[in-house]
Amino acid sequence: MEHEVIARCRALAECSEEPGFTTRTFLSPPMQDVHARLREWMEQAAMHVRIDPAGNLRGVYAASRPDAPRLYVGSHLDTVPHAGAFDGILGVVMGVALVEQLRGRPLKFHIEVVGFSEEEGVRFGVPFLGSRAFIGEPLGDRRVDDAISAFGLDPSKIAEAQADPAALGYLEFHIEQGPVLEDLSLPLAVVDAIVGQSRYEVRFEGQANHAGTTPMRLRRDALAAAGEWITAVEREARATEGLVATVGRLEAWPGAVNVIAGSVRASLDVRHRDDGVRLGAVQRLLRCSSQIAGRREISVTWEERLDQPAVPMDSNLSQILERALADSGHATQRMPSGAGHDAMIVARRMPVAMLFLRSPRGISHHPDEAVLPEDVAAALSTGARFLELLEAQIG
Amino acid sequence: MEHEVIARCRALAECSEEPGFTTRTFLSPPMQDVHARLREWMEQAAMHVRIDPAGNLRGVYAASRPDAPRLYVGSHLDTVPHAGAFDGILGVVMGVALVEQLRGRPLKFHIEVVGFSEEEGVRFGVPFLGSRAFIGEPLGDRRVDDAISAFGLDPSKIAEAQADPAALGYLEFHIEQGPVLEDLSLPLAVVDAIVGQSRYEVRFEGQANHAGTTPMRLRRDALAAAGEWITAVEREARATEGLVATVGRLEAWPGAVNVIAGSVRASLDVRHRDDGVRLGAVQRLLRCSSQIAGRREISVTWEERLDQPAVPMDSNLSQILERALADSGHATQRMPSGAGHDAMIVARRMPVAMLFLRSPRGISHHPDEAVLPEDVAAALSTGARFLELLEAQIG
Repeated sequence: MEHEVIARCRALAECSEEPGFTTRTFLSPPMQDVHARLREWMEQAAMHVRIDPAGNLRGVYAASRPDAPRLYVGSHLDTVPHAGAFDGILGVVMGVALVEQLRGRPLKFHIEVVGFSEEEGVRFGVPFLGSRAFIGEPLGDRRVDDAISAFGLDPSKIAEAQADPAALGYLEFHIEQGPVLEDLSLPLAVVDAIVGQSRYEVRFEGQANHAGTTPMRLRRDALAAAGEWITAVEREARATEGLVATVGRLEAWPGAVNVIAGSVRASLDVRHRDDGVRLGAVQRLLRCSSQIAGRREISVTWEERLDQPAVPMDSNLSQILERALADSGHATQRMPSGAGHDAMIVARRMPVAMLFLRSPRGISHHPDEAVLPEDVAAALSTGARFLELLEAQIG
Repeated sequence: MEHEVIARCRALAECSEEPGFTTRTFLSPPMQDVHARLREWMEQAAMHVRIDPAGNLRGVYAASRPDAPRLYVGSHLDTVPHAGAFDGILGVVMGVALVEQLRGRPLKFHIEVVGFSEEEGVRFGVPFLGSRAFIGEPLGDRRVDDAISAFGLDPSKIAEAQADPAALGYLEFHIEQGPVLEDLSLPLAVVDAIVGQSRYEVRFEGQANHAGTTPMRLRRDALAAAGEWITAVEREARATEGLVATVGRLEAWPGAVNVIAGSVRASLDVRHRDDGVRLGAVQRLLRCSSQIAGRREISVTWEERLDQPAVPMDSNLSQILERALADSGHATQRMPSGAGHDAMIVARRMPVAMLFLRSPRGISHHPDEAVLPEDVAAALSTGARFLELLEAQIG
């Protein structure tokens, strides 16, 4: 089965806006093919399929009783440009495979596999369109409505995308997209929280000057200030368990070999599972930039671009998932997710849990993105055991 | 006289390729106007004027005897884009003013005021065209020949631009283009050397990765490495008297807020009057980049772009200039020039000396570039005394 899961993901990666690459944005033409292929596999597994008005693919595997509660399993169908074959789509294909493994035996709850139409935010610069419609949040963008109409759906009926508010919860399988599990030599981990995230733009303003005629002590070098600060950002993050802080973008003006940089614009991205730790670190890093600037007689200003709180996963579902891991003979690793996922949005309406699969070499958002067959097998057995344990819990 | 010098510089700044700015490249049309205005002032001062085949303006004030030796006084006529009114042209206008101050009295040497056609390297990316023709170096560029022809001159006669090999020397007045004299509250300084200069491009290659999912200890962050190195570059320069070292250009890839930079390209510019000190510092800075990279498991490579030795000024002419300063009642400050000047090229053929005039706020290559009238007056009296002392020396 694990080889079939990987083969399906690779087959769906062929559905692309760009020949030779996997690029599939919100309700782009290749999404029709993705729907068609998944519909076929879902129907073979006795699921009832529809495309909701937000473009989410929904396949229901009926419980033994029609009034039974419902478990959602899913992830997203869209990709970044020049993507790999597993980010998002693996979670949908895994959902279908879990149903297939039941071989037609109904459970005490419905299983609805959801393939969200949009998570990456590529087409309109706004992420999570699929899961936001799923939890009933307005998308509030005319361009989104137009894209829905162009795809042959009716945006006025977007409310039909809403999830059952009494659902048991939402389970998402996803590749880790980082190097932690590989570094630990483990196939899987239960996600305990999606980290909170702060983003800032920081500007150092000094004085551009001639690199030959301005002695060191008379300089007001914005890039030297930024260099000192980048070092401090890294030091702060290294000193704090679980904190990541990144200066990923930096532009220096005027940007000539023989001119001292007068102006630097740098990005700051800070993440931690504990919002207090994150916000404390941000304050220290901004204060540090002021101290560096003050000592150098230059100015520093910043602008907050994002302050997104951490989202804890549901403790009950996560415990069941952890026990399923143990029962299937795997180590029970917990870890935070450093990136956002659909589960983060869905958590606003129902209990959610996530299982990470190891990412070889930590590679993601790249054609070399991969999963190991043995890790998919481990995830399938863990998922099957999760369904059994959940069924037992609801009695 | 000092106000007249400043007024002439400001008038010549109106000769521009771009209305509202001063932009005047090698043999561009406004250079014709510059030649015409200077020719007029030179002829009023009893000078004999010609434009040599390199486009250099040459005005000779005859000595008492035709077989007398010759002193050159000059600087360049071209500008950077959006320049100020004094870089280069001040040295030419000062030369004319020194001759005017003689009121027709001939000296024991000819004075030839030279306005070099090109120093900044803007038009063809190759600097010092005027002074290189002056010392008989081939310009070796077809585009230069074409520009000379288009200006109405004959490039086949370029040898006529060559200076008298038996000349007494070359004297250049130039604005400092830096903040040192203002910081010392001094109007003038004798330049003792033009610093040597090393330029490198340094590349750090790490691994681009997700800023959220990659823990600090598993990162290979090229920008963090560059930040640490920039700090080390600054520290090295601050610790070494007279050394300047600058990272002025830095580009980081992929340059996204949420992606660890995998690759950084940075410039390094190192200058010192002592070539041994400069080259030693360069070696330490490159070794330091290797140590930083090694510790971070990333790679660093570099490419030398320039290794230009320091050029000492002539000690005899500089001593005369220093004594002229003292005799005129000014402090005798010596300093290196952190930037290249025509004197650096001319020094290959004859003794050279330079006098710096204070640059208010250190500003140059900018419309706000200025000189103070009292500093020009001080330079004029120093120049007049220099001529007297030189005349006395040659007996």
